Amino acid sequence: MALIVQKFGGTSVANPEKIRNVAKRVLKKAREGNQMVVVLSAMAGETNRFVNLADQMQKIPDPREMDVLLSSGEQVTIALFAMAVKDEGGDAISFLGDQVKIITDTMHTKARIRNIDTERINKHLAQGKIVVVAGFQGVTDNEDITTLGRGGSDTTAVALAAALKADQCEIFTDVEGVYTTDPNICASARKIDRISYDEMLELASLGAKVLDIRSVGLAKKFKVPVHVRSTFTETEGTWVVEEEKKMESMLVSGVTYSKNEARITVSRVPDTPGIASKLFTPISDTGIIIDMIIQNTRAGDLTDMTFTVPRTDYVRAMKIVEEIAAEIGAESVNGSDDIAKISIVGVGMRNHAGIATTMFHVLAREGINIMMISTSEIKVSCVIAEKYTELAVRALHDAFEMGKENQPVDETGQ
Amino acid sequence: MALIVQKFGGTSVANPEKIRNVAKRVLKKAREGNQMVVVLSAMAGETNRFVNLADQMQKIPDPREMDVLLSSGEQVTIALFAMAVKDEGGDAISFLGDQVKIITDTMHTKARIRNIDTERINKHLAQGKIVVVAGFQGVTDNEDITTLGRGGSDTTAVALAAALKADQCEIFTDVEGVYTTDPNICASARKIDRISYDEMLELASLGAKVLDIRSVGLAKKFKVPVHVRSTFTETEGTWVVEEEKKMESMLVSGVTYSKNEARITVSRVPDTPGIASKLFTPISDTGIIIDMIIQNTRAGDLTDMTFTVPRTDYVRAMKIVEEIAAEIGAESVNGSDDIAKISIVGVGMRNHAGIATTMFHVLAREGINIMMISTSEIKVSCVIAEKYTELAVRALHDAFEMGKENQPVDETGQ
Repeated sequence: MALIVQKFGGTSVANPEKIRNVAKRVLKKAREGNQMVVVLSAMAGETNRFVNLADQMQKIPDPREMDVLLSSGEQVTIALFAMAVKDEGGDAISFLGDQVKIITDTMHTKARIRNIDTERINKHLAQGKIVVVAGFQGVTDNEDITTLGRGGSDTTAVALAAALKADQCEIFTDVEGVYTTDPNICASARKIDRISYDEMLELASLGAKVLDIRSVGLAKKFKVPVHVRSTFTETEGTWVVEEEKKMESMLVSGVTYSKNEARITVSRVPDTPGIASKLFTPISDTGIIIDMIIQNTRAGDLTDMTFTVPRTDYVRAMKIVEEIAAEIGAESVNGSDDIAKISIVGVGMRNHAGIATTMFHVLAREGINIMMISTSEIKVSCVIAEKYTELAVRALHDAFEMGKENQPVDETGQ
Repeated sequence: MALIVQKFGGTSVANPEKIRNVAKRVLKKAREGNQMVVVLSAMAGETNRFVNLADQMQKIPDPREMDVLLSSGEQVTIALFAMAVKDEGGDAISFLGDQVKIITDTMHTKARIRNIDTERINKHLAQGKIVVVAGFQGVTDNEDITTLGRGGSDTTAVALAAALKADQCEIFTDVEGVYTTDPNICASARKIDRISYDEMLELASLGAKVLDIRSVGLAKKFKVPVHVRSTFTETEGTWVVEEEKKMESMLVSGVTYSKNEARITVSRVPDTPGIASKLFTPISDTGIIIDMIIQNTRAGDLTDMTFTVPRTDYVRAMKIVEEIAAEIGAESVNGSDDIAKISIVGVGMRNHAGIATTMFHVLAREGINIMMISTSEIKVSCVIAEKYTELAVRALHDAFEMGKENQPVDETGQ
């Protein structure tokens, strides 16, 4: 007998029929002798409906009231789901975030879970019930409702799995798992069977949307095995687990890309101490996230600074930078928002030299100019012109033979 | 400075525009220096939507889960309302039933309020905030969500007014107040300015839908002055208050009718002790409410029993009665569902003899046969053929001069 936490997203519970199908699926697993905890999101479309209503009420909706509003969405699905389980002959009981004491901090609309009291859940599990918990929501010490932000239901599921010491946490979604790259632009993209927490963290931060990055961090911290799989098939998905020896034999686990990028270059900045701080602080202060930063020394006491921001913040960032540039005596500012970031990720990089070089080689071979480079222990990212995105993804996916289950080691070009 | 509880029903908060209008109205009252507590229902139509969803999930939806589902409706309106108040430059904070500890018993879908902890509300009132409370919902000692059943938001408002020792409780609805009779069938129907709790109790139990009967009982018990009025005008509505001397000068305050009636007669029942119990217990056990009961003694040891049930339960009740009639040796069972109950209500009856006689006289004059009669201290009800309903209402309304502010005393026919 295993204790299993299963999370189903909005598209999996989008209507009564789908809710019933999920109930049957969970019930089947329960009848095989497992203890089941189910975490549900709001029906697909509900959150947008609520946001739209809120926008009609207040220019910037009050965060506390926004959480009261948003959290009502999961309340609907957990109740309907429990009814469906009972209708199918099983037993279930639903709980809201505050009823199972998912205690969070007070950061409304993006709260972080501090603690979960598992007593009530364990009591009902022991009685043979399927315990249904509203995802995405929690409660402060002060009994105010909070929500966990984008992807919050994944976080609820992993946090519950950690608190309950569950044997596994299954995240059901509308794709079959984590892929070596986007199957929509690369036909040979392959579903990854097992991936390490660290690789998944890099992939999630680089734009792979299948798992929320916070939930991966939490899973890593508490060593919760997470199984990402499809609601609509019985196929095994991707296991996100601790790093295994076998994973290191893979040079690269995945290639990912992001088009939400824009580049800003400040030329001929006087290279004096504190200049970076002077440039970047006012940008950060407005909530704009600066990603890659590159500084090139020029002749004399001048330097060029180039950095990237989300494309959606490009215009706003440019305005700020132009003002500062004048203040600090920089010669000129230019930028472009037709760039993309291509990244390769893999724990194998730790033990295999030359993977970055291979990447540069492959891009050069395809005639793609690299504008910026950034690396971490298990990742290499390159900024290129946006129009080459798909070409670059396919070329890298092929070069590292990611479509194959077992990549050749150290035979990739260097 | 007064402490005022205002309740707005589903049609008053049916969309963002209406919610904003209500927010402005409440804010105006707050800015006049009053402390405001606002109780809101779910948006009109939401409850039906939830019931429809639940029906698709479980043949008889689980009551606990039904309450989780239903209570999400008010959660939406209180959040949107608080946002609207803030957008209009005021300050507001919303609370769910469990957040202000509206403790109820465990009778899901029709729970009764046991206790309300006013500490949190008073704290925020003292800070000058408009406190917005979800109507219709509470929480058990065990932290399960409950709902209060039909008209439950009225009950929430009156219970809050009682607990907070509010100066008044205003129930906003889509009519202008309590009328002497249904304005749709009697053109001279007049809005009543002031009515006693007891009269309102009788009117509510006789089918007047403007105020939920439980809220009236609660208002009476805690002496909460209740003001029933329209959301869409500024006109004063009807005050439901303790009995006043002036009220007694009115012979009759209102005439009301119900068409949800059916009659069942069991003929020639052996008149032995316990026979009524044998007949009525099996009916009550199925949840059917028996209203009027009349027993006529016949010659010998036989008796005739006639009683009324809601028309919607008629077929079911007949089936049960036919079985029992055979068992207890009654001669025959007959019934009809084309009847109506006409009632006149007024505290003036206590001091004025002959009001019932006048009623019988008026009905006779119109050629309307009376099938059954039942009376209380401040009410007379007659069962008549349904087709005479409107005629009877108009004739009685005219005879007792209810269209006039001041009825003549003791000049009404006897």
